[in-house]
Amino acid sequence: MPSRTALTVWPLEGIPEIEAGADLVDIIVHAGGQELADGDILVVTSKIVSKAEDRFVEADDREDAITSESVRVVASRTTPTGFTTRIVENRLGMVSAAAGVDASNTPAGTVLLLPVDPDASARAIAAGLRERLGVQVGVIVSDTLGRAWREGQTDHAIGAGGVQVFEDLRGGTDAEGRPLIVTMPCVADELAAAADLVKGKAARRPVAVVRGRADLVGGLDLPGARSIVRPLERDMFRLGADEAYAEGFAAGKAAASA
Amino acid sequence: MPSRTALTVWPLEGIPEIEAGADLVDIIVHAGGQELADGDILVVTSKIVSKAEDRFVEADDREDAITSESVRVVASRTTPTGFTTRIVENRLGMVSAAAGVDASNTPAGTVLLLPVDPDASARAIAAGLRERLGVQVGVIVSDTLGRAWREGQTDHAIGAGGVQVFEDLRGGTDAEGRPLIVTMPCVADELAAAADLVKGKAARRPVAVVRGRADLVGGLDLPGARSIVRPLERDMFRLGADEAYAEGFAAGKAAASA
Repeated sequence: MPSRTALTVWPLEGIPEIEAGADLVDIIVHAGGQELADGDILVVTSKIVSKAEDRFVEADDREDAITSESVRVVASRTTPTGFTTRIVENRLGMVSAAAGVDASNTPAGTVLLLPVDPDASARAIAAGLRERLGVQVGVIVSDTLGRAWREGQTDHAIGAGGVQVFEDLRGGTDAEGRPLIVTMPCVADELAAAADLVKGKAARRPVAVVRGRADLVGGLDLPGARSIVRPLERDMFRLGADEAYAEGFAAGKAAASA
Repeated sequence: MPSRTALTVWPLEGIPEIEAGADLVDIIVHAGGQELADGDILVVTSKIVSKAEDRFVEADDREDAITSESVRVVASRTTPTGFTTRIVENRLGMVSAAAGVDASNTPAGTVLLLPVDPDASARAIAAGLRERLGVQVGVIVSDTLGRAWREGQTDHAIGAGGVQVFEDLRGGTDAEGRPLIVTMPCVADELAAAADLVKGKAARRPVAVVRGRADLVGGLDLPGARSIVRPLERDMFRLGADEAYAEGFAAGKAAASA
């Protein structure tokens, strides 16, 4: 296990239930923040950021909350048993199954929305920890997302502060000296995924530390996770296949009748 | 850093350039396999599996190789500068930008195809290591994939042997006792992502070890990574938006003229 290139990931234990207005920097410092070192990257589950920022809204119906957080429906499908899945774009540009609206682990009659600006939240936590502890850490705010063509979910970065979101190898060369044209690893998403492996969904371990990629940690002015979101003009899947077909069908019919 | 819940990820150093016919089990044993322990998970880059399985094909044109590995074009788009991106489904059901055809780090005039059956490859490596070393390890074969709505790439599991690909929490409950309905973390993809953080794309570190999730390691009859691929009947993005619109337009026009 050569320490030079090893990565270690561990959860901070003893994070209490987060209330609206909680000081996450203070909580992290007391939950093991003392052992943080230069170059460590904290991965903070968006749910506790939302709770601290009091992003609870009253909602008898989670579906209504999803509608109000969505800027656009990408696709929807109802199963024969009547369960509807809606893929939507939320106000952050992210495409996901529920616009980040979370109804688990919240008080009855409420749901939790995503942080207003997860990049700003990540930067604020990074800035606070750097100031309190005198160590140069990076912060990722993570959320659990499905994927277009793969079952199950993985954790992704929806906010980033003081950490590179991409490892840009586009200008580099492979071991044979040939240019690596299209490779741009989204290390922020990989860090979020690695952290999820120690967090556990059902447990209260919402913060993990990743040590071993200090090269990715930098200034608080680094681009945030917003830069991971593919802009609409480069998005080949801006609509579900059924939805796009239906739009085309209507347009084709109208064109023929014109 | 409480060892109970910590994850450690490190690359095996000194893996040589892999030739067709190479014995990957033997190579891994000699590259640090001696330090493997029960419950360790090896993440092996598909490229070296392909090389060992002699999946080189002569191809003057990478695009031709992509076409022959594709069963279906999902979407394609040509930039104003003439560069065409094709999203295709390959014979393994995976949707990706190049059907897994790899032209980097291969001899001139050749490209490398994906392993014939990455799950079988992963199981064979796991079986070989278990027999040679007497330790219960799991094996993931990984590949680098883009995502529909996010820029950059992350590593994913395309083969799995002796390791759970999903952590099934669907029957579980959250910390408040409410059922966790839809959460099914794709731990195999998260393990592949974590491993990529220590491998480096440009370096020759194609195998990483993940220690700390022994709970995911089990029999060689566990479902493989093929089970991650969303079946077409559940796929809301089986066609790109432009392609589906065009199909609908033609059908609408024909319907109006009929």
